[in-house]
Amino acid sequence: MTPFRIKRRVEFHETDTAQIVHFSNFFRYMESAEVEFLRSRGLSVTMPWDGEHIGLPRVSATCDFFKPIRFDEEFEVAVTIERLGNKSVTYGFEFTRGSEVLAKGKVTSVCCRVGPHNELEPIPIPAEYRAKLEEAMS
Amino acid sequence: MTPFRIKRRVEFHETDTAQIVHFSNFFRYMESAEVEFLRSRGLSVTMPWDGEHIGLPRVSATCDFFKPIRFDEEFEVAVTIERLGNKSVTYGFEFTRGSEVLAKGKVTSVCCRVGPHNELEPIPIPAEYRAKLEEAMS
Amino acid sequence: MTPFRIKRRVEFHETDTAQIVHFSNFFRYMESAEVEFLRSRGLSVTMPWDGEHIGLPRVSATCDFFKPIRFDEEFEVAVTIERLGNKSVTYGFEFTRGSEVLAKGKVTSVCCRVGPHNELEPIPIPAEYRAKLEEAMS
Amino acid sequence: MTPFRIKRRVEFHETDTAQIVHFSNFFRYMESAEVEFLRSRGLSVTMPWDGEHIGLPRVSATCDFFKPIRFDEEFEVAVTIERLGNKSVTYGFEFTRGSEVLAKGKVTSVCCRVGPHNELEPIPIPAEYRAKLEEAMS
Repeated sequence: MTPFRIKRRVEFHETDTAQIVHFSNFFRYMESAEVEFLRSRGLSVTMPWDGEHIGLPRVSATCDFFKPIRFDEEFEVAVTIERLGNKSVTYGFEFTRGSEVLAKGKVTSVCCRVGPHNELEPIPIPAEYRAKLEEAMS
Repeated sequence: MTPFRIKRRVEFHETDTAQIVHFSNFFRYMESAEVEFLRSRGLSVTMPWDGEHIGLPRVSATCDFFKPIRFDEEFEVAVTIERLGNKSVTYGFEFTRGSEVLAKGKVTSVCCRVGPHNELEPIPIPAEYRAKLEEAMS
Repeated sequence: MTPFRIKRRVEFHETDTAQIVHFSNFFRYMESAEVEFLRSRGLSVTMPWDGEHIGLPRVSATCDFFKPIRFDEEFEVAVTIERLGNKSVTYGFEFTRGSEVLAKGKVTSVCCRVGPHNELEPIPIPAEYRAKLEEAMS
Repeated sequence: MTPFRIKRRVEFHETDTAQIVHFSNFFRYMESAEVEFLRSRGLSVTMPWDGEHIGLPRVSATCDFFKPIRFDEEFEVAVTIERLGNKSVTYGFEFTRGSEVLAKGKVTSVCCRVGPHNELEPIPIPAEYRAKLEEAMS
């Protein structure tokens, strides 16, 4: 699929004493890129669905860090769908600045029915939600 | 009242490019100190109450910063109740390291009934909740 | 002065169990709006200056919260300079969504020379830096 | 090796709209557990060393999430050294609550000389630093 791309600029509070973006924030950047991608398809990570509420909590996240990013620097995050399972979806992320690859990550989310007390019960991805992801992949 | 005190140590992700604790984190430290104080009284900032659910969102927060705190340094937060209103409570916080005062802050929370969709409706602080705060103040 | 305005959208990690933006994040939004404002004037909160390095750490921050903001909602932050002192600058911030005022805050930063080990020594705001702030205020 | 263990309690700001700990915070918990482990051995992730300064930035981080953790819940993080390379060290982390395994993660850090402008240059782990890690592993 053609990657979905967003641009960001490092905010001051995202950096740490090593004067680079704290590694935990790459996971936040990934999630926010995923949310933007989903929005571009009329979807979200938490939304009403057929009279119920579905959410897609993360069950796995990984990232390799190649180059640090510093305060005020701009970078790009490219999102692709790496695997679309029955109940889960795996996204791939590539962080770049110009031609430099800064980091690469992967996140797997599982589709859940969200109960009245925020209980999470895994369910198959609803057909229409899946159709929109498949459309993005093609 | 005798201040309620907690100790903390600065975590790496709480610092920024200036190699000091990011100022926003003082507000997180204050809230966590408030939560510890409330726990010591059998209370919380969000809890079931008489078959309903109450929460105490912040309506005002302020902090003056006198000395920076750096990674791995230990400090203390002292909590006092500055004012107990009908629907609101104002806490005062003092950050110290030994005899040095690092920062001073104040936070006002309003007691709210939390609706089924997390709507927030201000209500008087329930009598028993108030009684426990008054006990702490005396 | 004509306020400087930025738009943001609430990211998932910025919300909390009350399903609203955590109050500490308003302070991060303020700082990032200040940084954007400064960038629009060729300035920053931390930058080389005349062979030295200057930074503008916060010495005071306050915010009043009127309406919660929730995941995925868009809002605007308006920045104004409220007071330009010899060594310090106070910014005012207004958070709005359409005609609704969501929060109002104020932050005071002090200009500091940053030493080789990140020591902070307050100094008068350099003349050219001040001139650019005054230009924004007029 | 006998795992090094720390206890924590979920703070309010660490949760999100799904009313669970935001997944990015597990990475912060891991780092803070690593720092506590290192402190127990007289080491740190950033410290002066032989007239220079060394740091151990993360080059890879991964986590699998099995059960959510919610506001105010207590949990334990167990740290083990999984691999000690020439320039890098890989830690394993297990998050538990009683007998329940909540999450499992792994983080690899690379030993770097930190230059005067915070440049990071990978170097072999100094002999004495390594000796202390080996002691912990036995």
